[in-house]
Amino acid sequence: MLKRYLLAPGPTPVPPEAMMAMAMPIIHHRAPDFIPVLDSAKNGLKWLYQTKNDVLILCSTGTGGMVGSVNNFFSPGDKVIVVNGGKFGERWTKICQAYGLDVREIIVEWGYAVRPEKVEDALKKEPDIKGVFVQATETSTGVSHDIKALGEMMKGREDTILVVDAISALVAHDIKTDEWGLDVVIAGSQKGVMLPPGLTFVSISDKAWKKADTAKAPRFYFNFKKEREALAKNQTNFTSAVTLIIGLNECLKMLQSEGLENVFQRHARLATATREAVKAIGLDLYSKESPSNSVTAVLAPKGIDGQEIYKHLREKYGITAAGGQGSAKGKLFRIAHLGYADTFDVITAIAGLEMVLKGLGYPVKLGRGVSVAQELLMR
Amino acid sequence: MLKRYLLAPGPTPVPPEAMMAMAMPIIHHRAPDFIPVLDSAKNGLKWLYQTKNDVLILCSTGTGGMVGSVNNFFSPGDKVIVVNGGKFGERWTKICQAYGLDVREIIVEWGYAVRPEKVEDALKKEPDIKGVFVQATETSTGVSHDIKALGEMMKGREDTILVVDAISALVAHDIKTDEWGLDVVIAGSQKGVMLPPGLTFVSISDKAWKKADTAKAPRFYFNFKKEREALAKNQTNFTSAVTLIIGLNECLKMLQSEGLENVFQRHARLATATREAVKAIGLDLYSKESPSNSVTAVLAPKGIDGQEIYKHLREKYGITAAGGQGSAKGKLFRIAHLGYADTFDVITAIAGLEMVLKGLGYPVKLGRGVSVAQELLMR
Repeated sequence: MLKRYLLAPGPTPVPPEAMMAMAMPIIHHRAPDFIPVLDSAKNGLKWLYQTKNDVLILCSTGTGGMVGSVNNFFSPGDKVIVVNGGKFGERWTKICQAYGLDVREIIVEWGYAVRPEKVEDALKKEPDIKGVFVQATETSTGVSHDIKALGEMMKGREDTILVVDAISALVAHDIKTDEWGLDVVIAGSQKGVMLPPGLTFVSISDKAWKKADTAKAPRFYFNFKKEREALAKNQTNFTSAVTLIIGLNECLKMLQSEGLENVFQRHARLATATREAVKAIGLDLYSKESPSNSVTAVLAPKGIDGQEIYKHLREKYGITAAGGQGSAKGKLFRIAHLGYADTFDVITAIAGLEMVLKGLGYPVKLGRGVSVAQELLMR
Repeated sequence: MLKRYLLAPGPTPVPPEAMMAMAMPIIHHRAPDFIPVLDSAKNGLKWLYQTKNDVLILCSTGTGGMVGSVNNFFSPGDKVIVVNGGKFGERWTKICQAYGLDVREIIVEWGYAVRPEKVEDALKKEPDIKGVFVQATETSTGVSHDIKALGEMMKGREDTILVVDAISALVAHDIKTDEWGLDVVIAGSQKGVMLPPGLTFVSISDKAWKKADTAKAPRFYFNFKKEREALAKNQTNFTSAVTLIIGLNECLKMLQSEGLENVFQRHARLATATREAVKAIGLDLYSKESPSNSVTAVLAPKGIDGQEIYKHLREKYGITAAGGQGSAKGKLFRIAHLGYADTFDVITAIAGLEMVLKGLGYPVKLGRGVSVAQELLMR
């Protein structure tokens, strides 16, 4: 028996409360039993998003939410800015181009966060920019972009909206959707909200809804106005993913009983302990600045392939972390501390990492990183 | 306590084997553990579809599969035929129009099946028709269209493909994808395959793949060529809905051990018993011809609203059947015998229906329909 530990930045472990709720017999999505379920889920999401706006609940992965956030608010030819600092920044560009938008990319070196003034300059240079696309946390590099600063820039720009991929950031980070002026914020079920993959969530500001009235990109499955109409009746436009929404309620209840501040503090505590322990082992973070509280990206030490570390963690010790993506493959590995995660998940990750490194011939004193993590986790 | 019975044409009940498998801890979709799971699921689907083609597995409701079957094979301006004989025929038209196709509708009166010669005439009149869209079973009316005859028409037409929404028909009906020349066949998880909502399946013929090379409709989330590449490596293009795919394997195993012929015979047996029992009660079928083996649509008797029957079944007896949709609302109600359904589900439906009708003042002899169903179900 090799016991399994899931420490990847999505899918993340699902709490037994949600698993059991989802294992109950199916109910019908148009029957009255489901109304209070969806009502509670949508209100819970508003709480989590810190917004008064509706938060749509759609059946797809997070990428579906990203696609909907392009084809519901924009028209072919629209000029937009994409902050591209990793694999998911690249994805914004690809989606925008698939729908005929005219993309200006702000390329950010992998491992760094965007300089907000670069976005400001680009907006000033072309006042007819219709949207800015960014990640709250770029999962591939473990870096958080300053979405609060970008939100500030939107104020006073009536025809430009900020579209934030918060798929891996929500729950781990304090994201003040309304206060910061974030027009569209996307999340996914298999990350901080601790569910299996299959749902995406999208919050939409009044300013963004206005753009939906004139946007001409084709849409049918991801039709946000139809979803809004359905949501007002506590339904979804097409068949609801009933089991996942039932699970969502369980997870939201758990987060609500913990309290939003405590949820953020827990993630910050786990992330800090992970980062400091990794450094104590003698490794460098891949994220050169603004490391995320969802996932820690670590530079593989010289002479060791990051994929080997990922592979050994899994094969020898049953720990599923993550390797590198795209152009960073081999250079790094990633450890998540997201969602249903606590003290001994970090201890497991660090202890396992030390053992793997030692096994691969890297000079590491077993327990050194662990003790640093323990110290910090006791605070 | 009011015990619940789910007899709706989707979502359908999920067998405990699948529920338990889906309640196991999450595994990662890019880790090797998941490879054999997806491999087994894709092979099981080929068996179920009776096809040598790949069957894509996507995270969305069935409507997502329908959308993908438009935007992957067609370009704006393409002339297509839609067989529209109910709510889901209407949906084909709406999706095609959302992507700029030039739609010729063959309107079929609700409750009837399309005359294949009408499609043939339309194809002859305009040889540059690029596609024909149809339902195998039109769920809103309980009628099956003759997709075998339509498949025959495609042979020899190199630039025209047949796109079949088999969302509610697959499993209940013998659908010979390859033998009948069905180019694109769409199904959904929450119907015959007995899973919660969240997956759609799409089989694609070589002829259809050729069209995918030149199709210009925008696509990103539903990108079939990328999904095919991923599937070849036993992956999905975006995050896999891991729990649902694990459940899919369990359900496919159950169907495989029953055997395809037996699965079809079971559905035919349940459907026949339901139809004959309904007639014995003194009611007429809403489906005037080719009634489906998935769902029986029943005309509400004079003076009684179909929605009332649906409502009383649910509120008084805990039975979730279905009412009418769209323009048929109030005129009918529907009883499913689809997926995880057997003898006493039909008995429950018929007994409950008799009790509801009696309660609503309709002259019915309790047990009359039940005894007819018993008689037929004993064969």
